[in-house]
Amino acid sequence: MENLIKKAYTQSIKNKRRGDEEEEVEAIKRIILNAKKIIIATNNQKKFKVISDILSRVVNAKIEMLNINTNCADLTRMPAVSKGLIAVDTEEADVVIARGRLGVPGSGSMLVIMDGKGRILSASLSPSSVVHKEDIETRIKKEIIDALKRVGIELKTDDLRKD
Amino acid sequence: MENLIKKAYTQSIKNKRRGDEEEEVEAIKRIILNAKKIIIATNNQKKFKVISDILSRVVNAKIEMLNINTNCADLTRMPAVSKGLIAVDTEEADVVIARGRLGVPGSGSMLVIMDGKGRILSASLSPSSVVHKEDIETRIKKEIIDALKRVGIELKTDDLRKD
Amino acid sequence: MENLIKKAYTQSIKNKRRGDEEEEVEAIKRIILNAKKIIIATNNQKKFKVISDILSRVVNAKIEMLNINTNCADLTRMPAVSKGLIAVDTEEADVVIARGRLGVPGSGSMLVIMDGKGRILSASLSPSSVVHKEDIETRIKKEIIDALKRVGIELKTDDLRKD
Amino acid sequence: MENLIKKAYTQSIKNKRRGDEEEEVEAIKRIILNAKKIIIATNNQKKFKVISDILSRVVNAKIEMLNINTNCADLTRMPAVSKGLIAVDTEEADVVIARGRLGVPGSGSMLVIMDGKGRILSASLSPSSVVHKEDIETRIKKEIIDALKRVGIELKTDDLRKD
Repeated sequence: MENLIKKAYTQSIKNKRRGDEEEEVEAIKRIILNAKKIIIATNNQKKFKVISDILSRVVNAKIEMLNINTNCADLTRMPAVSKGLIAVDTEEADVVIARGRLGVPGSGSMLVIMDGKGRILSASLSPSSVVHKEDIETRIKKEIIDALKRVGIELKTDDLRKD
Repeated sequence: MENLIKKAYTQSIKNKRRGDEEEEVEAIKRIILNAKKIIIATNNQKKFKVISDILSRVVNAKIEMLNINTNCADLTRMPAVSKGLIAVDTEEADVVIARGRLGVPGSGSMLVIMDGKGRILSASLSPSSVVHKEDIETRIKKEIIDALKRVGIELKTDDLRKD
Repeated sequence: MENLIKKAYTQSIKNKRRGDEEEEVEAIKRIILNAKKIIIATNNQKKFKVISDILSRVVNAKIEMLNINTNCADLTRMPAVSKGLIAVDTEEADVVIARGRLGVPGSGSMLVIMDGKGRILSASLSPSSVVHKEDIETRIKKEIIDALKRVGIELKTDDLRKD
Repeated sequence: MENLIKKAYTQSIKNKRRGDEEEEVEAIKRIILNAKKIIIATNNQKKFKVISDILSRVVNAKIEMLNINTNCADLTRMPAVSKGLIAVDTEEADVVIARGRLGVPGSGSMLVIMDGKGRILSASLSPSSVVHKEDIETRIKKEIIDALKRVGIELKTDDLRKD
């Protein structure tokens, strides 16, 4: 990853960057699929189960719940991202997944996938529940599927039918 | 906004926060709809036009392009957010809209709506163009419509038909 | 401030930036000295008094304590900066002063002066108390004097003798 | 480090945190002293030499210069911290040292020491050169000595006399 980032940064400095490249998306995909340890930054058993069920269909990683209360992240400008960094800083993991508020109160939620250094690999968003009026578990399931799909990790319809 | 944030933060401290509240989404909506000056942080005329065309259907604001090259934001951990902050810090605006990469190279793009202090009001995401293979202008149009919709600002079908 | 930042950013983009300029330091000084409302992001009466006593010798501002518990900021990567942003986001102030940990636990403390948008104007640092072994109030007094001095605001010896 | 941070965060959540602890400062010291690879985020040979000369008196690490232009960091809210993160994200290093502007133009400079994940271990500050009027190399030397001293790493007088 370090080398790809260096290459992309050098392109940007020279004004030669033309958007994401296939090998970059591939690299993100590989980091997620080859992860040995994934931490999910939530204290909620149900949310953990939804995310870890989906993940375990595509990865062989040990998937663990973060054992720290992350409510404090709600007092930051980007609560979901801050939750992820709490996991990055208190655990040695290959991948961290966090879900929380996107920005200010009312701004809806974000599910974010980070690597072990806290770099953002993918994400997905939902509107506030006062706007979407959907079941929270259904929503989270869509979010994790969507965040994986954005970087080319598709779940087989077969897998989804299992639910 | 300051009072709503204070209220929400106090709820979080007391462990009494139960997700976004209707008045919070309303407040975000009002900030966007009542904006007098909106800065779009892009140097690209076409992208500016797509976003400003959609915006001008719902707001009466003066909509301007940021006259600083924001390529440098690509060397940060969250390029779209960094672009927004460049606009916040160099302009006096009520609302700032920025579009750029979400995270690491390959992570796709983010369109973000901020207020004049840099607080995040809404956002939307797209996968890398190597994944979505869609026309960039169609994509940006979807993004701005989606970011507005997340906080309850819906464009009338009538408006959309005009294109 | 917006225009000075725009000018400096433009210099950086053109590789023509040669360090801080006198008018920039002057602008920071003016923002602090002309502030009408200053929020000090601490819940500790003693710390508030030390900082506000020093400040009131150089400014005419209304100086207030933030009435939100900011302990949560300790779960972020830069606690002092996060405390400042809690104040920026929950108050309308011209200047915010926050004091807290610099970085990871053990990294000592930082006092930071921000403007109303959360832009960092000045700061000062102290080592951990386990390293400096000094009285906390003496330390904070030095920090605020030092942070002001860095941007050209000197307290008259006369003023300091009063203590 | 992960465990110490987890412990400190847990103390904060329970409102039982009483400032930095000796073992935390010790841990920071150990990370710096035991580093095998240190990256200095500067493109300036002279600045690199000043910092690496001081460092090589206390560590056995391979000390390298970052081979990416970091000027772009000047368009962020905390340029020195952003420079450090550019190094963290493009290199695999145990420790990263960056020097750049603290905050807005005019706010003076910051030297920051980070670990390989981008967590801030120590730092030091200087006023703008328009305020301090000192030779830049003397200044940087003071900064690195000061940043090390803050976490208990003292250079022997003997070492300093060598210059």
